[in-house]
Amino acid sequence: MKCLDLLLGRSLASSEDKKERVGAVPGVSVFGLDAFSSAAYGPEAALTVLIPLGVAGVSFALPITIGISVILFLVYLSYRQTIAAYPNGAGSYTVAKENLGDKAGLLAAVALMIDYTLNVAVGISAGVNQIVSAAPALQPHTLLLCLAILAALAYVNLRGLRETGLAFLPPTYLFVGCLGVLIALGIFRAITAAGHPQPAMAPAASPAVHEQISLWLFLKAFAAGCTAMTGVEAVSNGVQAFKEPPVAFARKALTMIVSVLILLLLGVAFLVQTYKITATEPGSPQYQSILSMVTQAVVGRGIFYYITMGAVLLVLCLSANTSFADFPRVCRTIAQDGYLPYSFMVRGRRLVFTEGILVLTALAGVLLICFNGVTDKLIPLFAVGAFLAFTLSQAGMVMHWRKKRKSGAVGSVAMNGIGGAATGITFLIVIVTKFTDGAWIVFLVIPALYLFMLRIHRHYKMVGDQLALSGSVELTPPRQMIAVVPLVSMGSLAQRALQIAFGLSGDIKVVHVEQENSPPDFQNQWAHDVLPAVSRAHLAEPQLVTLASPYRQVVTPILSYIWRLEKENPDQTIAVLIPQLIESRWYYSFLHNRHATILRTLLLMKGLNRIVVVNVPWHIQEREKIAQQAHELWKRRSKIEGPAQFIRREPAERKDERA
Amino acid sequence: MKCLDLLLGRSLASSEDKKERVGAVPGVSVFGLDAFSSAAYGPEAALTVLIPLGVAGVSFALPITIGISVILFLVYLSYRQTIAAYPNGAGSYTVAKENLGDKAGLLAAVALMIDYTLNVAVGISAGVNQIVSAAPALQPHTLLLCLAILAALAYVNLRGLRETGLAFLPPTYLFVGCLGVLIALGIFRAITAAGHPQPAMAPAASPAVHEQISLWLFLKAFAAGCTAMTGVEAVSNGVQAFKEPPVAFARKALTMIVSVLILLLLGVAFLVQTYKITATEPGSPQYQSILSMVTQAVVGRGIFYYITMGAVLLVLCLSANTSFADFPRVCRTIAQDGYLPYSFMVRGRRLVFTEGILVLTALAGVLLICFNGVTDKLIPLFAVGAFLAFTLSQAGMVMHWRKKRKSGAVGSVAMNGIGGAATGITFLIVIVTKFTDGAWIVFLVIPALYLFMLRIHRHYKMVGDQLALSGSVELTPPRQMIAVVPLVSMGSLAQRALQIAFGLSGDIKVVHVEQENSPPDFQNQWAHDVLPAVSRAHLAEPQLVTLASPYRQVVTPILSYIWRLEKENPDQTIAVLIPQLIESRWYYSFLHNRHATILRTLLLMKGLNRIVVVNVPWHIQEREKIAQQAHELWKRRSKIEGPAQFIRREPAERKDERA
Repeated sequence: MKCLDLLLGRSLASSEDKKERVGAVPGVSVFGLDAFSSAAYGPEAALTVLIPLGVAGVSFALPITIGISVILFLVYLSYRQTIAAYPNGAGSYTVAKENLGDKAGLLAAVALMIDYTLNVAVGISAGVNQIVSAAPALQPHTLLLCLAILAALAYVNLRGLRETGLAFLPPTYLFVGCLGVLIALGIFRAITAAGHPQPAMAPAASPAVHEQISLWLFLKAFAAGCTAMTGVEAVSNGVQAFKEPPVAFARKALTMIVSVLILLLLGVAFLVQTYKITATEPGSPQYQSILSMVTQAVVGRGIFYYITMGAVLLVLCLSANTSFADFPRVCRTIAQDGYLPYSFMVRGRRLVFTEGILVLTALAGVLLICFNGVTDKLIPLFAVGAFLAFTLSQAGMVMHWRKKRKSGAVGSVAMNGIGGAATGITFLIVIVTKFTDGAWIVFLVIPALYLFMLRIHRHYKMVGDQLALSGSVELTPPRQMIAVVPLVSMGSLAQRALQIAFGLSGDIKVVHVEQENSPPDFQNQWAHDVLPAVSRAHLAEPQLVTLASPYRQVVTPILSYIWRLEKENPDQTIAVLIPQLIESRWYYSFLHNRHATILRTLLLMKGLNRIVVVNVPWHIQEREKIAQQAHELWKRRSKIEGPAQFIRREPAERKDERA
Repeated sequence: MKCLDLLLGRSLASSEDKKERVGAVPGVSVFGLDAFSSAAYGPEAALTVLIPLGVAGVSFALPITIGISVILFLVYLSYRQTIAAYPNGAGSYTVAKENLGDKAGLLAAVALMIDYTLNVAVGISAGVNQIVSAAPALQPHTLLLCLAILAALAYVNLRGLRETGLAFLPPTYLFVGCLGVLIALGIFRAITAAGHPQPAMAPAASPAVHEQISLWLFLKAFAAGCTAMTGVEAVSNGVQAFKEPPVAFARKALTMIVSVLILLLLGVAFLVQTYKITATEPGSPQYQSILSMVTQAVVGRGIFYYITMGAVLLVLCLSANTSFADFPRVCRTIAQDGYLPYSFMVRGRRLVFTEGILVLTALAGVLLICFNGVTDKLIPLFAVGAFLAFTLSQAGMVMHWRKKRKSGAVGSVAMNGIGGAATGITFLIVIVTKFTDGAWIVFLVIPALYLFMLRIHRHYKMVGDQLALSGSVELTPPRQMIAVVPLVSMGSLAQRALQIAFGLSGDIKVVHVEQENSPPDFQNQWAHDVLPAVSRAHLAEPQLVTLASPYRQVVTPILSYIWRLEKENPDQTIAVLIPQLIESRWYYSFLHNRHATILRTLLLMKGLNRIVVVNVPWHIQEREKIAQQAHELWKRRSKIEGPAQFIRREPAERKDERA
């Protein structure tokens, strides 16, 4: 426990929950990193699609970004309302479930879970790719770096929410600050140069023009750019992580996140267009990221360039953290409805949902290992998940307002309706334009996960039905049970088991399996030692059942006997007493057979409800421990009664200490 | 079980033991392969030491082999007597233990176990090396081939003794037959050519002479040649594997093995000397084994050459089988005395000592993997083990005869004394000449294993002492126990656990841990539902104990409560009833918490002997299964009583089937 304290911090009481909550500003870094990081790869993704247009493509950067910003704003308005309507925290899952029904909710849940998992893998892998392009010597260790960052994220999140938020504040500020300065400087230069500033360092030459703009290409660029919107969902899922009043703080954090994001996106697009920056082919030797070229064009390759690039890298790596903040909460909510194992509801020692964090880490780890740390191919997939969730959430909000029919509801319906239509269309565009790029996988994973969770729910329901009482509690005066005691030989443990059996029942069957290695004199001992003791204590004589075992099995004959007994006594409870040696150290258990454990397991697994298993333990103590206990006893006794009396009492005491 | 039947053959009853025993001739192949195979590498090892002498070295082949044969004969006489004196099968371990004391016995046991384990690794690796030199394309798969042969051997041995013996008859005969024909032919040619036959194919030219013979070199050659004697011990360990009368059959088998071995060794040495064959440097490109050169010289590279080489290869591979036949038996004997875990005494479904076979396979597998399938370096080690065991055994027999003081004992004492002295000196020679070649490792492994087995024995003794009754069995009229029932909510399972508790005791404590996710109305339910039911049934009212859990733990508060209860009631047995859901499929258990299992484990591990654990199971049945059972019940009932009556009875019956 000490060790865990050191690692994860002391256990937090449930009542300390409020202290762990965050205000708007740390909330921005807890829930906003994912959104901000998309400013780094969204424009890049859109412009990469436009490469075939050459310099002509640059002029589409701003229109596409404005389109994305409009949808982003609509989504923002919608989630603001969601936060107010669901102050306990509700993302697409709750909204869709409550307003569109369980199935739509489950679909949103699946989409979200895929989105969050992919986001972790993609974020870490994108960050590590930046590190690797800066230091190519690290190339062979890509996967190792990815997994190390994943482990670090999991660790920070297991330590708890508040500390996570604080740890991520500096990189968030650095990123927003750097890009802000960059954009301001760029705009200032553009104005002073009457719209045609001289780049501090010329961008790479644009390739020759191959194509003319087409609707298909435009849509593809738009769909690619939409990845910039993923991560906006996070705040509304995590309302409960904010300080009182959570709704106000959450809305504030969301406003800050979205406005900063929109400013960054528009600023970058403006700079791209002003400095006529075209994307470079990813994977080619001349490759350079858009943000790198923009920074270079505005300020040259000075110290500021490297700081900005460092901030971008850090934010990309840490963007995965949003998933860590949110995925466990989503799982908790889903588990509460019985679509995921209940264990997702349990809060660990630091008040975080440990299992969610561990499952997310495991899933992302598997993805990183499968793709060997290079997850570019997964980017389309997680946009699909995000937009499906967005659309379901918006549609849910429309139904929500229609049900409420309050004043102002018409406006709300319209707002969410337009948002839903916009994200729905975007979803379709993303699916269609990226289907062959991998979006088809989503059509396999979503139904599979959907059916899996449905199956969990059905099973919980069945268990619940079988555990429920049909009426009120009914108890009857107890009937005598049958006690079965399997014994190999007579010793302290056997004597103890027999004594317990007499406490349970007057109808005792002692079962002895004849073995080739067992002491042959059990019957003798029974007749000459046990039976006299039974009659001395005026107890009912137990029945001795000797079982043959031609195939040298131990457990099977006992089981067969018990099944027969159970059939012959259809109304009685059968208590099987299993004497069991308990060793002081686990490795000593290799010195003994496992018949006790096997018998217990089989009885519990294969028996009926009428068979109960009574474990009678007998603890083997190490010599040193016995000596130590005797010494302590002696010290205690000699204080109270003086050593003389102790000697007289010692044997009895020692027996008590053991028995 | 069907699957195991197919794999390992049907289960054999203990009474079928006699049928599984072998006669002298199959006994030769079961216990003799190891000895025969040493004819292939013993002379080789001795002659390799003599390489520096050039052709002059050849003249020492016969003297050294005669020396080895004399010691071999002494060892043979000694083991013949051992077989007669210990008709239950006793190798060095039993002989040394009974006559020289437990510690000498344990030392012999350790030496034997090392010897057998190394023999498996060395034999398989030597065989595979032959295959690989014949087909160099297999070189990269050396380890895989070794492990495949190891697995095959383990499998054949798990199937049982008789089948093993039969499977190994043909290769044994082929080997002995080929070498016999070869030697006879060679002697015939030598006689007809007046001692100077013309080789059919000239052996490789001898290298230039570097050295003169020295005592040190002679001793080294002798020590190396002594590896030819390993494996002779096997028969005396396995006497019980022979048909009635086992002593006669075992002696016959031993006589056959040793006489064939001596003839082979002398024959090979004679041919080496006649054809002036010198060993080639192992690992050099010109390398060829002695047996290959001898065969070539006598018959040329015809079909007979290849058959003979094939037989050598087969026997080398299979020589490991002797260890498989014997190692488990030695372990059984050691385990009977408590120096190894008792599980080595258990005979599996095919009447073999499964655990011994598996442990041997695992150890040899680890050795093979560690040395990557090339275990030449281990050969000195296993000669050390073998000769230590020989010497202890002989010394033990000397003491045996001295104790008996029968007529003829003087002769026996002399015989074993000379044998012991001879093997003892050989042991010293082996140790000294091979110390730097790796024999020093034995001085680390032997004490480690020795102390380990001593520790096991001491632990068994301590457990035995603690389990033994100090006097006769004593029973007392049972006192009422305290029943503790941890409950989360009221349902069928809780009701069942309560009902069982009433059967156990009138003093029931129901323990409820308040959890953030648990239904809040437990107290209500208790007051309004449970207590009325208790009074309706005229039962004593259980005490409800509600425990707070600020840190969201479930098991810890219950444990603390039970420890307190145990302290406050120092004389009473406490029965903790643990209600437990039993799922129909193992993977469903992930849907439930493991509190029941954790609580049970901790109570058993950390509790005193006064705490017994009662598992109250509740089986969750799958819908289909319930339907099927209802259907079967309906069919059964309708046969007995007709369908009309069944309908009336069905609900009660169904309940019974479940409850």
